Amino acid sequence: MSTGPERENWFTEYCEESGSAFSLRTTRELHDSHSRYQRIQVFATTNFGNLLVLDGFVMLSARDNFIYHEMMTHPALCTHTDPRHVLIVGGGDCGCLREVLKHDSVKRVDQVELDAEVTRVSEKFFPELCTANDDPRASLHFTDAIDWVENTPPQTYDVIIVDSTDPIGQAARLFAAPFYRACRQALRDDGLLAVQSESPLIHLDLILSIRAQMTAAGFTHLDTLNFPQCTYPSGWWSATLASTRGAHDRIRSTREISGCGYYTAEVHRAALTPPAFLRAAITAPHAPEAS
Amino acid sequence: MSTGPERENWFTEYCEESGSAFSLRTTRELHDSHSRYQRIQVFATTNFGNLLVLDGFVMLSARDNFIYHEMMTHPALCTHTDPRHVLIVGGGDCGCLREVLKHDSVKRVDQVELDAEVTRVSEKFFPELCTANDDPRASLHFTDAIDWVENTPPQTYDVIIVDSTDPIGQAARLFAAPFYRACRQALRDDGLLAVQSESPLIHLDLILSIRAQMTAAGFTHLDTLNFPQCTYPSGWWSATLASTRGAHDRIRSTREISGCGYYTAEVHRAALTPPAFLRAAITAPHAPEAS
Repeated sequence: MSTGPERENWFTEYCEESGSAFSLRTTRELHDSHSRYQRIQVFATTNFGNLLVLDGFVMLSARDNFIYHEMMTHPALCTHTDPRHVLIVGGGDCGCLREVLKHDSVKRVDQVELDAEVTRVSEKFFPELCTANDDPRASLHFTDAIDWVENTPPQTYDVIIVDSTDPIGQAARLFAAPFYRACRQALRDDGLLAVQSESPLIHLDLILSIRAQMTAAGFTHLDTLNFPQCTYPSGWWSATLASTRGAHDRIRSTREISGCGYYTAEVHRAALTPPAFLRAAITAPHAPEAS
Repeated sequence: MSTGPERENWFTEYCEESGSAFSLRTTRELHDSHSRYQRIQVFATTNFGNLLVLDGFVMLSARDNFIYHEMMTHPALCTHTDPRHVLIVGGGDCGCLREVLKHDSVKRVDQVELDAEVTRVSEKFFPELCTANDDPRASLHFTDAIDWVENTPPQTYDVIIVDSTDPIGQAARLFAAPFYRACRQALRDDGLLAVQSESPLIHLDLILSIRAQMTAAGFTHLDTLNFPQCTYPSGWWSATLASTRGAHDRIRSTREISGCGYYTAEVHRAALTPPAFLRAAITAPHAPEAS
């Protein structure tokens, strides 16, 4: 019987619910601290650059985060005719913020992250993600995002991006209808909500739940897009777009987005194509209902 | 410093060239033998069904092989107007064979696998992949595939599928221009070659080399399609289609393919969409030339 990797200097994340694990070979630990909310670690790896880990879960590697950050932001922003005001929920590593601010139409971004130390660590060890932190259009707030959204005047934002951790502990409330309802009220009528929605292969039930909760919150048009993400469980991830106007495959701007490694207009449309099993699950008459 | 998964009952594959590893939790080892060519192991896992491992490399899990086998076969077969004669190189687990034989147009499939024991083990532990092995249209040959192709009369096959292991040892010759040239000669004029071409994220140079070798072999139209594959390094994989007529996005049949979990006509087209970095690498003026 084989056993797990017993060599030293590997960081491993176990995914208990799928009985799988992913490891990266490390050269040293660059940072280890306990903030008020979580343990924050940064490792140097041999092939993936620096690695950010929160409470044992991989948040990002320098090598492959471009896919996640581009796919969490550009599909929503490029589908909107004129995105001016954007809210990022979570996103403390600032990778989404950098991508959002590539859009010249954007006048203001509020980023609401609970844990300021994540952003401080990111500024130190992932400076390439934080190049837009000093942009005058960016406002970084370190507070509870649900309170923030609930206290936002109606019709404030054009796009809300939920770049959250997994639905565990505090973050679980970010996957439920009351939060999505508050997002809908904080969005303008033609606004879009984009949330990270985990792995199509191993979290299909969660994707269906997110969609049901969004429907319960009044969103009428949903699209779950999928993309590779090597350092997350199963190597395959998703984001779900929600709006009350749809046509999420219609790219309404001719804005050029600089420096993308993954996103193109064609990739946008391709990512919206569900594999057969996901299409079947989404259209099934007995998909789970929101409570 | 964290270390790798040190628990018992995990199977781990290390990918040295990317400094990453993937593990599955196992319950027991079902099979361990040494054939004339390689070590063959089968593990029962907690969440991915049975797992086939050759010389320490994951070949497939019961849970996620459907993506690979569908994407190795249906894009080529559905692009061909009337695929009648098909060659599978490798493919000893018989998953590609099963998918090919879903196409009613197919009159004969030659499968040429070096190691008969892989097929015997697959019949025992992955019977769901071997349901077409007794189809009268299927001929299983256990011999050297390069010799087979070189001795095939010209204009024999409509589609050739190269379902090989990684380009190590014997299999390395399956990634080179002389073999691709023999494939082109064995194909009819409107024929298609489909080869597994590793990970877009961690084997980009190999993908570019495969494409250069195919060009050197006389193929004029190449498309590299990408798809998730959880149990392969990086969780993201590719296949490359080659022909002398192109239009690999044009689905020429209205044949219904039963029981697909991943492939749809829309997925076919989406998979052909290269991410930005792959598109840039493919179209770069200084892409590596075949020697």
